[in-house]
Amino acid sequence: MQTTVGEWSIYLNGNLEGDANILLTHPAKIEEAGQGAISFIANKKYQHFAYTTRASAIIVANDFVAEKEIKAALIRVEQPYLAFTKVLGRFNRLFDDLIGTEEPSFIHDSASIGSDTYIGAFSYIGKNAKIGDNVKIFPHVFVGDNTIVEEGSILFPDVKVYRGCSIGKSCVIHSGAVIGSDGFGFVLQPDRTYLKVPQLGNVVLEEDVEIGANSTIDRATMGSTIIHKGTKIDNLVQVAHNVEIGAHTVIAAQTGISGSTRIGNHCIIGGQVGFVGHIDIADESRINAQSGVSKSIKDLGKSWNGTPAFDYLASLRSQSVFRNLPVLEKRLEQLEKIFKNQEANHS
Amino acid sequence: MQTTVGEWSIYLNGNLEGDANILLTHPAKIEEAGQGAISFIANKKYQHFAYTTRASAIIVANDFVAEKEIKAALIRVEQPYLAFTKVLGRFNRLFDDLIGTEEPSFIHDSASIGSDTYIGAFSYIGKNAKIGDNVKIFPHVFVGDNTIVEEGSILFPDVKVYRGCSIGKSCVIHSGAVIGSDGFGFVLQPDRTYLKVPQLGNVVLEEDVEIGANSTIDRATMGSTIIHKGTKIDNLVQVAHNVEIGAHTVIAAQTGISGSTRIGNHCIIGGQVGFVGHIDIADESRINAQSGVSKSIKDLGKSWNGTPAFDYLASLRSQSVFRNLPVLEKRLEQLEKIFKNQEANHS
Amino acid sequence: MQTTVGEWSIYLNGNLEGDANILLTHPAKIEEAGQGAISFIANKKYQHFAYTTRASAIIVANDFVAEKEIKAALIRVEQPYLAFTKVLGRFNRLFDDLIGTEEPSFIHDSASIGSDTYIGAFSYIGKNAKIGDNVKIFPHVFVGDNTIVEEGSILFPDVKVYRGCSIGKSCVIHSGAVIGSDGFGFVLQPDRTYLKVPQLGNVVLEEDVEIGANSTIDRATMGSTIIHKGTKIDNLVQVAHNVEIGAHTVIAAQTGISGSTRIGNHCIIGGQVGFVGHIDIADESRINAQSGVSKSIKDLGKSWNGTPAFDYLASLRSQSVFRNLPVLEKRLEQLEKIFKNQEANHS
Repeated sequence: MQTTVGEWSIYLNGNLEGDANILLTHPAKIEEAGQGAISFIANKKYQHFAYTTRASAIIVANDFVAEKEIKAALIRVEQPYLAFTKVLGRFNRLFDDLIGTEEPSFIHDSASIGSDTYIGAFSYIGKNAKIGDNVKIFPHVFVGDNTIVEEGSILFPDVKVYRGCSIGKSCVIHSGAVIGSDGFGFVLQPDRTYLKVPQLGNVVLEEDVEIGANSTIDRATMGSTIIHKGTKIDNLVQVAHNVEIGAHTVIAAQTGISGSTRIGNHCIIGGQVGFVGHIDIADESRINAQSGVSKSIKDLGKSWNGTPAFDYLASLRSQSVFRNLPVLEKRLEQLEKIFKNQEANHS
Repeated sequence: MQTTVGEWSIYLNGNLEGDANILLTHPAKIEEAGQGAISFIANKKYQHFAYTTRASAIIVANDFVAEKEIKAALIRVEQPYLAFTKVLGRFNRLFDDLIGTEEPSFIHDSASIGSDTYIGAFSYIGKNAKIGDNVKIFPHVFVGDNTIVEEGSILFPDVKVYRGCSIGKSCVIHSGAVIGSDGFGFVLQPDRTYLKVPQLGNVVLEEDVEIGANSTIDRATMGSTIIHKGTKIDNLVQVAHNVEIGAHTVIAAQTGISGSTRIGNHCIIGGQVGFVGHIDIADESRINAQSGVSKSIKDLGKSWNGTPAFDYLASLRSQSVFRNLPVLEKRLEQLEKIFKNQEANHS
Repeated sequence: MQTTVGEWSIYLNGNLEGDANILLTHPAKIEEAGQGAISFIANKKYQHFAYTTRASAIIVANDFVAEKEIKAALIRVEQPYLAFTKVLGRFNRLFDDLIGTEEPSFIHDSASIGSDTYIGAFSYIGKNAKIGDNVKIFPHVFVGDNTIVEEGSILFPDVKVYRGCSIGKSCVIHSGAVIGSDGFGFVLQPDRTYLKVPQLGNVVLEEDVEIGANSTIDRATMGSTIIHKGTKIDNLVQVAHNVEIGAHTVIAAQTGISGSTRIGNHCIIGGQVGFVGHIDIADESRINAQSGVSKSIKDLGKSWNGTPAFDYLASLRSQSVFRNLPVLEKRLEQLEKIFKNQEANHS
């Protein structure tokens, strides 16, 4: 793909400084960029590369001020990283040409398959499953009976979607993710053995959801485990039965959400966080990595940290004193000694 | 499936109040139930739905006292949730009809396959493997050489059981679980590189064990990694080599158990817990989520929390003071100031 | 495999005490060993078994002093466990005979396959992929387009390596591991939705790397996520995009490393550890299990613990005071009371 600086500037709705006719052939990090590369600066730490880079064009912020001469053309925009992401997206049309069905694959007679789909070898599409237009199903994928995968979604190799689940439009599901496994429900019987609670519900992913590699999302006992539109989930995340996650929330790797908990919209959740079951987390909550959230959060837009989680800044102060606890204890001992001496003197 | 309230009441060994002839067609949550639904109340929080639900029958506790008129028939039992679980189980005979072998599949000539099995497409059954009667093997499952899967077990899509392992009767293993991968053993050599310790043992699951999606259970270096009967393990749990887990223990998601540790019977272990290696955990221990257990636990039936884990209630008290540490430090400073002033005045 | 004690002693470069002609047929743990077994003692805890074991030969340290008569032949070496590991390795030539291609498998015409390889049924080898000599690819493995797997590597069932990645010589990758899934990168747009940042880079594993079951290693946004030679990674570990892990480092299960972080050489990292992104960890660092590392570590060879992690020994002291916090608070209250009384008396 070859396009000119001028064309890119128009595409990005930017202001161009430099020769509009320079050819751009690929995107690159500014510190590694060579001729033909389009790069970007979004962070002041990287600003000094502007004067030495061999990139042919750099996307910079509107208020960027050059301190020396820059050889590359500049494309000024409001959000350089967002603009560069759009550049990457145009260069990365990797899966557009993936069309057709590889053999052997297993597609049940009753399944319906849309147009312009790709179905990789060794994929399994169950009874009455519905695969929408432009869906890309890589090898080794399992789509259970009565499951729906809507238009434009990508299921990478070895994704498993159990029976009766629903994957919305334009979702991306990475390898090894399991959607619709049984919720972890057992009843203790009088003889102290556990009886499995059948999990009759399903999982619903709304549109534009991304699920990371080897994450697991359990089906509801009854009803649905739901992930609302635009939410992004990283690798190795556990979502238990009957959980509901709001729209446009991001959840980093290895976090676990226990059964029936509801997470709000626009939340930002760090890695290795744990949520107990049956709680509600307010919209726009930010949870720091490794926190353990043990109670509902009702206030919107606050930051939380620690196990059990409390106010983020307060927790940093507690952590800071924690490191110093042995000294604190010594200081207390010192005071106690002084007291004892006083008492001895007074008596 | 259509049955009458009367038949259900007999099946559940309950006491019926209402019309025995009403037809029941499906189970449902009480807040969502419509005509023909059988539902339950096990928690006082949900009791108020009894007066407004459209369910045709409700399973309630023997000591349930109605405060208003209830339209639905009542089936009184000792443990309503246990009874309802049995209802779900009868409605959920989803896999009973799954019989036969889909093609293509790979079954080694020397493997033995029982009667009434299901073997999904793309499944692989290795040399001398033995698959018992009524075993359901979903697509993409791997059963290694010399591995045994006993009667009535279900292996969901993409379960992997390495060579020489043993899966007992009536086990349920969810998608992506790995049984029998190599234990993590390496010896540091004089040149500071690591030499792999071959892992020659296996994994043994006794009967009625459930393993969650994407959990991993490593084979022993020599001997067996063992999970005793009736134990239930959630998703993304790590069980290292030579671990032994007792009977009727439950382990929530993302917990990790290091090598050679032994967990007792009837333990309840929360999510994201970590156990160091080579320790013993007494029967009936309860470990709170996110704890780090660093020493053997010898007392039966106690609760533990924190990293490193100690007595549950004591740890809650410590956590409570922790939140207040900056204030504690201020109070100490205040006392120190008073002292300094006293000393200054005295001198 | 049958060999004599004398042959083993020579192979291990040991000093033999006993009959060189005794036949050895298998390795075993000393407490379980029977006739024909070769065993070892590396730990004083197990020394007492030397006098009762039925093993035919025991590998012991050069400075081992028998306190009673021992029936078994002794092979004295510098590092008994290392020597025993070599014994296990010779008895465990399980995969040497695995050669050939099982059907059905999918190998793209443009892929190149070396000599003496094994390619299990249902494996998928993409366009222009290169599989080196003696590579063992178990069933259900996915090797994406343009990916290289070098000589002697083993990919266990259901390993997934996305397009354009590189696996070095003699690597071992366990079932369910995902290599090359998209990094978790999204840009927040003015309308508060997230735009996916295409992940154009790849993953590079150098030689002799081991990756545990169901671990995930994301491809770089641009450039490579790199794991240097000899490094061993346990199960369910998350390695984010653009991470670089040094040589001969070991990482225990369920640890997570956030984007662009660099881990040094010869580090030892416990289980369930979390690293924030964009930090550097010095060579030979030791990080205790469940720690949360929030800042770069510049000093070589130190030990760390806690969340946020600080000096290991200091953190143990803080943890010890933590358990006692309620008592500490009581002591402080006591002093405050005394003060109030003093003031009351003085006024």
